[in-house]
Amino acid sequence: VPEHEPDLQRSANWLAGAFRETGFPTVEVWPTDGGPAVFAEWPSPDPGAPTVLVYSHHDVRAAKDELWQQTKPFEPVLRDGRVYGRGTSDAKGQVLTHLEAVRALLALEADAPPVGLKFVVEGEEEVGSPNFADLIDRCRDRLDADFVVLSDTLTWSADRPAVCVGMRGLVHAALQVRGPVADVHAGAVSGVAPNPIAALAALLARLVDDEGRVAVPGFYDDVLEGSPEERRELAELTADEADWLRRSGTRAVVGEAGRSLGERLYLRPAIEIVSILGGDAVGASRGAIPAEATAMLQVSLVPDQDPQRVGDQLRDWVAANIAREVDYELTISPIMSPAYSTPPEHPAIPVLRECMSEGFGVPAGRMRNSGSGPAALLAQQLSAPVLFFGTGLPEDNWHADDESMAMDVLAKGATTLALFWQRIAESARPRETQ
Amino acid sequence: VPEHEPDLQRSANWLAGAFRETGFPTVEVWPTDGGPAVFAEWPSPDPGAPTVLVYSHHDVRAAKDELWQQTKPFEPVLRDGRVYGRGTSDAKGQVLTHLEAVRALLALEADAPPVGLKFVVEGEEEVGSPNFADLIDRCRDRLDADFVVLSDTLTWSADRPAVCVGMRGLVHAALQVRGPVADVHAGAVSGVAPNPIAALAALLARLVDDEGRVAVPGFYDDVLEGSPEERRELAELTADEADWLRRSGTRAVVGEAGRSLGERLYLRPAIEIVSILGGDAVGASRGAIPAEATAMLQVSLVPDQDPQRVGDQLRDWVAANIAREVDYELTISPIMSPAYSTPPEHPAIPVLRECMSEGFGVPAGRMRNSGSGPAALLAQQLSAPVLFFGTGLPEDNWHADDESMAMDVLAKGATTLALFWQRIAESARPRETQ
Repeated sequence: VPEHEPDLQRSANWLAGAFRETGFPTVEVWPTDGGPAVFAEWPSPDPGAPTVLVYSHHDVRAAKDELWQQTKPFEPVLRDGRVYGRGTSDAKGQVLTHLEAVRALLALEADAPPVGLKFVVEGEEEVGSPNFADLIDRCRDRLDADFVVLSDTLTWSADRPAVCVGMRGLVHAALQVRGPVADVHAGAVSGVAPNPIAALAALLARLVDDEGRVAVPGFYDDVLEGSPEERRELAELTADEADWLRRSGTRAVVGEAGRSLGERLYLRPAIEIVSILGGDAVGASRGAIPAEATAMLQVSLVPDQDPQRVGDQLRDWVAANIAREVDYELTISPIMSPAYSTPPEHPAIPVLRECMSEGFGVPAGRMRNSGSGPAALLAQQLSAPVLFFGTGLPEDNWHADDESMAMDVLAKGATTLALFWQRIAESARPRETQ
Repeated sequence: VPEHEPDLQRSANWLAGAFRETGFPTVEVWPTDGGPAVFAEWPSPDPGAPTVLVYSHHDVRAAKDELWQQTKPFEPVLRDGRVYGRGTSDAKGQVLTHLEAVRALLALEADAPPVGLKFVVEGEEEVGSPNFADLIDRCRDRLDADFVVLSDTLTWSADRPAVCVGMRGLVHAALQVRGPVADVHAGAVSGVAPNPIAALAALLARLVDDEGRVAVPGFYDDVLEGSPEERRELAELTADEADWLRRSGTRAVVGEAGRSLGERLYLRPAIEIVSILGGDAVGASRGAIPAEATAMLQVSLVPDQDPQRVGDQLRDWVAANIAREVDYELTISPIMSPAYSTPPEHPAIPVLRECMSEGFGVPAGRMRNSGSGPAALLAQQLSAPVLFFGTGLPEDNWHADDESMAMDVLAKGATTLALFWQRIAESARPRETQ
């Protein structure tokens, strides 16, 4: 959003300063056609140590002041061990967790982190990273790494932490339905005019069937079933639905029959209607049947669904199911991302799980994330596997009001990362020098 | 709307001045708790002549400047024989038609209209006349009349005029559906959270069945079939659907199977969704499943449906059909009106039809109006039958953009009314004095 360009620049400058204060020898703010990204680099003194690229973002979602109870969105406060404010958990707090980890390692009388560390903290994640592919392309040499750690994720709970091994993908679509040529007095034509709200509702009502499955033909064709082991672990991790409801604020668990909560969240695709508008919904009503009504859809993708193909399936389904009496326009956003899975045999996964267990003081499980991010883009463009480490929690209210982050989770996350960098460096060291 | 109170006062004052200039000996602006009404009275010099109360309104609907092509809503212009501007047809133009009729009679060397004329032109019709019942109650003696002529109606077309003999009634309802406790990041919960937009769409999709009939149980129980003669006349009047579509701008005729266009419009009830809102439909999206979604419904009633009973039926239907996983609140507006029919044998009906045939130069048919007004209220509180005479046309764009009125229709309407007052006075005169 153009009016927030100065805010994004200020945010980038602040973060660059924080990297410099921590000791990073190279810190740069990279402009893009949208929000600027922050790049920081600290090579390892050990030429045999691996280099890791950490990805996160410093931009945030819009916030509605009037809905916030604890503080104003951009005036953070610390209360009862939680810091409240827009971006505290998604994802500024996750970047701070990394900085705290590096500071902790330096405090242990080291002169530099044990692994080569690069950070790219972008400024456009919340709008789908429209310029990030171009940025990676231009700066590929600077971003080169043995693997990527994407830190913009949720873990299951502070008591039941879990390593994330994948993220769903995302396709956005907007469907505009058109009835009368112009808004027309409902009293004068009710009962005979094609109502675009009714036609849109009738279509959307058919999007998900009685079993909670998306009714778009072909939608599940490319969906991979998770391994029996992962499905069992997910079912076990997410078994306490009452706990989930309390923390997510979602009041009820719905969705695909015969699948555990965790499976629905991470291994199954979904389509949600995130907005709808028709008629004089706000302000003075003209009592008219509106000329148009619009809904915005978000499709969550899982491996191996192809975003383009899903877009085509949605297009075919709308064409086949929309009422004949209305016109419509379906716009599939060109900003789309497929799902991503970390290669299951990557040796750093068990190391991270071990460090997270120590950092949080309880055994860490395995999960995925249901939201999306540029994981597939990073993996493909940098030809490097992507791992995930995030400290967000469902109760942190990402994108919603009263977003917050628990300080003790930040500390546990920092401990996990400090241990992780040490163990990764150790495991890369030739045996004879140990 | 409070900010438009001065506008309504100015409108009332202007109209009062117009009545005075025309010669009405009594003109008063009556304050209410909302918009002021204008009262004007001109008794007949003939004590045997009937007294007629004309009802109309001077308030108008909201207008969206940016949608108007011909002019700004409140800067009327005359173009190609039509005057464009908010209220030109609904209903300021209809009041002017009456004034022109009186001026025409006075120009024919009469000192006063041949019948006793009273006008009550209210300032709150477009918000459902919330204070009008109270106003009638307070001023019943002043409003006393042999019959009422309600002038806030559409006729079929300039080429095919028709006398209106009834109006549908109206019930408004707002349905708010609630899913998550607060808006919650769609990415984090999609596929498992109850989506209030989806639940609302699923419910609304069931409101009208495949035959175009309202699916609310009991909805048709009290619906009177029109007489075979009226149904035949309506079918004949409205047979040219292409003409209707061109003039109404509705692009397609939908609705109840097996009923003519005219029957659907005037003799059959209907429910329309006039607005819907959920999520961040306007402005920056937070990518969240919203906590709530709301739709506004307008129910058009016909004789002998009872508004309260229909409200109860709607309440029962929502309770029985809404998804179990969401909460909801259904608000039935206390401002409701039943349908009204002029007593079919009222002797003024054929007189008006005859005058309209002469005024428009073509035989006038019979129709009703599909919109609502305070006809039932007037009839009941004043114990007087209500007739209708209106010059609005579907192509006048009531409540929509580029509202307009044809000047020649205004002139034909004025001629009709001048003839009507003369004939009514004549028919009341004792035979020996003729």
